[in-house]
Amino acid sequence: MDHFAIRSGAHRLSSLSPNVIDLAERLIACASVTPARGSVFDTLEGMLQPLGFAVHRFIAGGEAGADEEEGGPVENLFAIRQGPPGSRHLAFAGHVDVVPPGDGWTSDAFAPERRGNLLYGRGAVDMKGAIAAMVAAVADIPANAGTLSFIITGDEEGPAVHGTRALIDLMRARGEVPDLCLVGEPTSVTRLGDMMKIGRRGSVNIFLEVAGTQGHVAYPHLADNPAPRLVALLAELDALELDQGTNWFQPSNLEITDIAIGNPAHNVIPGAARARISIRFNDLHTGAELGRRVTEIAARHGGTARPIISGEPFLTPPGDFSRMVAGAITAETGLVPEASTSGGTSDARFLKALCPVIEFGLLNATMHKRDEAVAIEDLEALVRIYRRIVHAAFE
Amino acid sequence: MDHFAIRSGAHRLSSLSPNVIDLAERLIACASVTPARGSVFDTLEGMLQPLGFAVHRFIAGGEAGADEEEGGPVENLFAIRQGPPGSRHLAFAGHVDVVPPGDGWTSDAFAPERRGNLLYGRGAVDMKGAIAAMVAAVADIPANAGTLSFIITGDEEGPAVHGTRALIDLMRARGEVPDLCLVGEPTSVTRLGDMMKIGRRGSVNIFLEVAGTQGHVAYPHLADNPAPRLVALLAELDALELDQGTNWFQPSNLEITDIAIGNPAHNVIPGAARARISIRFNDLHTGAELGRRVTEIAARHGGTARPIISGEPFLTPPGDFSRMVAGAITAETGLVPEASTSGGTSDARFLKALCPVIEFGLLNATMHKRDEAVAIEDLEALVRIYRRIVHAAFE
Ligand SMILES: [Zn+2]
Ligand SMILES: [Zn+2]
Repeated sequence: MDHFAIRSGAHRLSSLSPNVIDLAERLIACASVTPARGSVFDTLEGMLQPLGFAVHRFIAGGEAGADEEEGGPVENLFAIRQGPPGSRHLAFAGHVDVVPPGDGWTSDAFAPERRGNLLYGRGAVDMKGAIAAMVAAVADIPANAGTLSFIITGDEEGPAVHGTRALIDLMRARGEVPDLCLVGEPTSVTRLGDMMKIGRRGSVNIFLEVAGTQGHVAYPHLADNPAPRLVALLAELDALELDQGTNWFQPSNLEITDIAIGNPAHNVIPGAARARISIRFNDLHTGAELGRRVTEIAARHGGTARPIISGEPFLTPPGDFSRMVAGAITAETGLVPEASTSGGTSDARFLKALCPVIEFGLLNATMHKRDEAVAIEDLEALVRIYRRIVHAAFE
Repeated sequence: MDHFAIRSGAHRLSSLSPNVIDLAERLIACASVTPARGSVFDTLEGMLQPLGFAVHRFIAGGEAGADEEEGGPVENLFAIRQGPPGSRHLAFAGHVDVVPPGDGWTSDAFAPERRGNLLYGRGAVDMKGAIAAMVAAVADIPANAGTLSFIITGDEEGPAVHGTRALIDLMRARGEVPDLCLVGEPTSVTRLGDMMKIGRRGSVNIFLEVAGTQGHVAYPHLADNPAPRLVALLAELDALELDQGTNWFQPSNLEITDIAIGNPAHNVIPGAARARISIRFNDLHTGAELGRRVTEIAARHGGTARPIISGEPFLTPPGDFSRMVAGAITAETGLVPEASTSGGTSDARFLKALCPVIEFGLLNATMHKRDEAVAIEDLEALVRIYRRIVHAAFE
């Protein structure tokens, strides 16, 4: 694979090829707190159009009368450059929205600033830096090498209802479904290349409620305290062993994340008791099945359960695609990336419906934190890794 | 005991004897929401002084820098009319403070109004009506019959820290400790005379906390969720059988009155979990012993417990005093009062330190509610019952 190193080295010196630092700075300079619309998409479109991409942008969600929890309106962008008929289609996926900067930044979160060998700014690693690297990586791929696309949403950090899901609908409608998809989330932990994600656990939050009859503690026979039943329900749920993990996933895990009665009166037996659990589950389960199971247990304790599925698990079992990504990483960094399924959810939970999906990106140490920053050399290395993946996909 | 009925009947017709309705209306007209001071005590003093009572009033609590939860400043009144040396001392005890009227009254809560055979106003049954009956009852008892006193606080409905307890200190300091004490709380349930209280359960609220380490649900190994330990602690407490009751008390009872984690973030494992229990306990226990016991159980689950004792139980075992009170009730109403220990706490929990205490008063159906009201005929009957008790005590 030596020829890749030579070619990428050459391209870094070319003044025609966009500079990844410059691209990243231009994206960071758009204050695109989730849900993102407008200028950050204008900026990205301005990068992709000169490279021969057909850019499709649309707004979704936020209609009058729509469910407020779904968020929106949000903007999405699908850009595609068709290769020869029948050629492979590799998609880069990601998001240009960012979480709010919060307080305490050393410099303005939306005024990208280089200090030493770091570039600071909200989104530097999650994930405008990666999107800049994707753009730089494809800049000098010949159009006849294969089909390339960008699947970019303005709502990954929010409810994600009108983001990548709407993009998937668009691609299906256009008949432009990728064969492989690389998501640029920051998956590296301590050194660029030490981890990629070949799967993510699913996530479901379940809202529990046990009703009773309020009354005075001095007259418990006139009341029906729901708290002991909620306690018994939670004890049973906490004792569940959902599974023992799989080859690729750790065991599914249930956490009690809240219990709330909210009864300020010391002498009053409460009339209702509520709790919330969060289950992160592997591909032995579905959110719906877990929701049913908890609902049945709750019913036995006289309670109800309302599951809200944040995402089903995804797994791209180790194979050609993961070898391709790992090979590119090893060639540039010398590291063999761990094929992990740990951590939170990402939009890969939706994209898995289209094709095999793998996530690989920058260091996640500063993501969602103040003074989010990316090492300049990591950005440049990521361009070369992404470019190697393109070449491998089109080989 | 027929001569009592004749005597009380005669007194009702006397124009010199204060009219209980008039007395009750004058007390109700003072808007004495807890903690009470001033005019309601002026009014009561104006009733007792003409009857030969030495009236001692004082303000307690509310000093600069004092614990706000203790309430105050509050006024208290101790009035005593000494009988011959060595004569028996019967005390009437009660409170002139009232709970706030709240909304929805048909007429002004502090403008006593007769409609039909009912007298309406905040405090009509709890317990200005009973205090009016006490005053009317003693009005024609000859001074040489025995020693009579009134132990009246302006803080029974509040924290009760600077109320009856301060009065007890005063009586002890003066060496004027009663031999018998009748508390005028509204103990009757459906008909005047159907219930008296010979005891009350004790009450302790215990605040539980289990600490952990906050974290993200996707990385539970980096966190320490306190919720399962709180759930196990509560399950163990809920399963406790404190006792099976006594001859006079129902079994002690523990209620979970609140659970609070207060974690709005669905993806966050909470760092602490709290709960509150309320134990109503009989005289097989003390608040301190229960506090220690719960603290030990909490410690086994890695938690802490902070007991706040509202009151220890009291019991005046059936005997001379209860027969005296029951006899007076039966003679006037034909009912044999149930000797109950049910319900909430009262200031009898403090007075029991001085002498045998029994509670008897009006119907409690409207206490603390809007349109609190007393039946005129109940007020008049209560005067006769209280008077019979005085006569029996001095026999
Ligand atoms: Zn991200
Ligand atoms: Zn009362």
